Amino acid sequence: MNRFETIANNLAEQIRAGQIPVGTKLPSLRQIIAQYGVSQSTGFRAYYLLEQWGLVRAEERSGYFVTPGAAINAVSAEKPVEAPKKVDISDLVFSVLESTRHPDIVPLGSAFPSPKLFPSARLLKSLVAGTRSLTPWSTVEDLPGSDQLRQQIRLRYVATGFAVAPEEIIVTSGALEALNLCLMAVTRPGDVVAVESPGFYAALQAIERLDLRAVEIPVDPVSGLDLDALRDALEQHPIRACWFMPNFQNPTGTSLTVEKKRKLVEMLREKQVPLIEDDVYQELHFSRERPLPAKAFDTEGLVMHCSSFSKTLAPGYRIGWATAGRYADKVRRLKLMTTLSACIPAQAGVADYLEHGGYDKHLRSLRSSLHVQLEQMETALHKWLPSSVRWTRPDGGYMLWLQLAQSVRAMELHALASERGISIAPGPMFSARHAFQNCVRLNFGHPWEARFENAIASLAEILDDPEVHEC
Amino acid sequence: MNRFETIANNLAEQIRAGQIPVGTKLPSLRQIIAQYGVSQSTGFRAYYLLEQWGLVRAEERSGYFVTPGAAINAVSAEKPVEAPKKVDISDLVFSVLESTRHPDIVPLGSAFPSPKLFPSARLLKSLVAGTRSLTPWSTVEDLPGSDQLRQQIRLRYVATGFAVAPEEIIVTSGALEALNLCLMAVTRPGDVVAVESPGFYAALQAIERLDLRAVEIPVDPVSGLDLDALRDALEQHPIRACWFMPNFQNPTGTSLTVEKKRKLVEMLREKQVPLIEDDVYQELHFSRERPLPAKAFDTEGLVMHCSSFSKTLAPGYRIGWATAGRYADKVRRLKLMTTLSACIPAQAGVADYLEHGGYDKHLRSLRSSLHVQLEQMETALHKWLPSSVRWTRPDGGYMLWLQLAQSVRAMELHALASERGISIAPGPMFSARHAFQNCVRLNFGHPWEARFENAIASLAEILDDPEVHEC
Repeated sequence: MNRFETIANNLAEQIRAGQIPVGTKLPSLRQIIAQYGVSQSTGFRAYYLLEQWGLVRAEERSGYFVTPGAAINAVSAEKPVEAPKKVDISDLVFSVLESTRHPDIVPLGSAFPSPKLFPSARLLKSLVAGTRSLTPWSTVEDLPGSDQLRQQIRLRYVATGFAVAPEEIIVTSGALEALNLCLMAVTRPGDVVAVESPGFYAALQAIERLDLRAVEIPVDPVSGLDLDALRDALEQHPIRACWFMPNFQNPTGTSLTVEKKRKLVEMLREKQVPLIEDDVYQELHFSRERPLPAKAFDTEGLVMHCSSFSKTLAPGYRIGWATAGRYADKVRRLKLMTTLSACIPAQAGVADYLEHGGYDKHLRSLRSSLHVQLEQMETALHKWLPSSVRWTRPDGGYMLWLQLAQSVRAMELHALASERGISIAPGPMFSARHAFQNCVRLNFGHPWEARFENAIASLAEILDDPEVHEC
Repeated sequence: MNRFETIANNLAEQIRAGQIPVGTKLPSLRQIIAQYGVSQSTGFRAYYLLEQWGLVRAEERSGYFVTPGAAINAVSAEKPVEAPKKVDISDLVFSVLESTRHPDIVPLGSAFPSPKLFPSARLLKSLVAGTRSLTPWSTVEDLPGSDQLRQQIRLRYVATGFAVAPEEIIVTSGALEALNLCLMAVTRPGDVVAVESPGFYAALQAIERLDLRAVEIPVDPVSGLDLDALRDALEQHPIRACWFMPNFQNPTGTSLTVEKKRKLVEMLREKQVPLIEDDVYQELHFSRERPLPAKAFDTEGLVMHCSSFSKTLAPGYRIGWATAGRYADKVRRLKLMTTLSACIPAQAGVADYLEHGGYDKHLRSLRSSLHVQLEQMETALHKWLPSSVRWTRPDGGYMLWLQLAQSVRAMELHALASERGISIAPGPMFSARHAFQNCVRLNFGHPWEARFENAIASLAEILDDPEVHEC
């Protein structure tokens, strides 16, 4: 490490530990030079680095001050002092993903519903029909996404109650690619992005990977994203983009009301801040009406609506899309530069299925299975868990968010559950600050079996173990 | 733009124009402050920015000096003064890609061979068989790449004459994703990457997108990459990675001898610099033996070997891979964070085809078609083009590199050819400095038809137009 990095890390540590409070003027450069016995340029470079990390703000001719962001801002690949934390989040996420990969693990921590709920035989029929209908030239003509598929996606918007322009739609390798491309399209290294807390870990990983900084906006387990906190954050930080999930939010399962969605879009419109809207669970609503996305209220092309068929039809086909408004050209080019195109037979297959396969019928049956499984999960939770445990009761999707006693350490719970062949998604996965130590996300996307009930009973047993509690 | 950015741009412009030569000491900060009437911190920040752009080097207690890299270093998204050039390269690349998308355009500028040369019916049979063999759980178990497919890929290495560890192989959405992930795995914004000149434009686009800087190493149209120039560059610049194509290089079609490949790997081993090896044309050799990649000489896991089935079997399936040596874990994680997985039915289909479909027989026939098409292309070139025109005679692949008269401006040639329904790939696409103004890459990957001969005759006519010549 260079001398100036050492100095910067040293100061960063003190700032983060709260030893140098927000608003404080940092030692003058003269003092730093004297204290560390370094040249003026080394001193300047150390301060420049702190500024890049978002910890201090330079005021011309008056000095460097600790920014209000210093406390919130917690994800950045440029912060060596936080390196252990960063590695933690990836290690944790990957170990949980890994632990759900084996069929004999009880997949309460999984991000997917059971693949058995999907019409794989019918879809294969469409894959064959769709692939047969391709001309050899489709492989080069369909690079921005098959026209048939984009047409089918457009029709689903119409059925939801609003229209998008076909040229806004870019077909991607799943929603994950769509979200990543949209984030890349509107940010540059060092930019600040608002995310939900708790929120989807992939947003944190993307922010880390692209050298961005995260501002976490609280999500209430009942009412969803805190718009007042968002308004404050928009005033305080130079937020370049938001990455939110207004429907069946991951991990809490909560949704914004129509009124809040409208307010959110209006708030971002005033500030001209783009919204990356992750809407992968939209089709999995338990109430009668398909919920509107925030995109429905977007009049200026600021909302990039991302979704996929991975949670509703075919995880392995890797077909998703971004409806990227005014950023569509940029997103399309990034796609061409990084992965060129989603699998063309898979696109043709999904398009054929949407047209002829009975997607709506399948969705009705899928929703009803998930709804029943939620009841079964809740029955087991009531039966086995202490009455102090609280959870969200989502109106769609297949995840619920468990709040355990304050003393619970979800990481220990995860470790002990893994030993018994049970995967769970511990709360700290969903926060840049590794908060939500007493929370757990549970997946009810699998047809109920005795092993799920047994797993809940085991979790209750583990919760009795003093090892999972802070002393 | 901030004050310090304006100052930095101002100086950058002078440095790039050669008005401030390499090695020169820049004005002292005191002078800058006096000259622009700014604070000390603004002056420092301007210099810091120049340093980040790789144009100057700070020497403690003595000042800032123009680096030798300043002249070569030409791609960086952080350089507002070069922004127009950057947009040029992307616009150019996308307009050429776009112009090859329509079947009625004569695709001499295309990056793909004719899809008619591929066994699409037989492959569909394998797609069905492979997809049928999947269990529902494959969609979650196969995220790092189907075991069967990785096993088949491993066997092809064995057949080429060397072994790789199965866990080194990561299945990706085409070679383009593999190359991009490998580059991301070994660089951080601001790093210097060595690329070929002329070289594959996707490398330049990736460097631009990731805020890296390019050092261009000359490629001789006959002997390939200039290893002496590489050795000098390794001494002069802090090169973090190389992105090269030792077999049938794009765009020249030239290959390195076995001896040069060995030397290349040894040179990079000494400096511990990773090599991203793009080897997508390896299977398309015209001589009897499949050429070895540089990876064959890698003893320390420093070579990341990237390839795909897009140029030999199925462009639209988007199945490629990286055999990423010591960086395999990092690449695998980046993949999981950005696109999760390549299309699983397509993986199963390609695996089934490799096992049962007769890939080697298909490759023999494909190679022989390409070889014949090269003869046909050369006959037409001899017949129609002025005898001063020279071209490379590749021993594989389906591209050749035309060197026209010095006065030719390939961009004008491209524009006029487009008007006549002919796409070509103009030389400046293949260089960060938009060099090779008198060169063109031609694709001979299509079964010969009268329209190709007519297109070559048209190009000859256009070359007579004074508009395509510099006056």
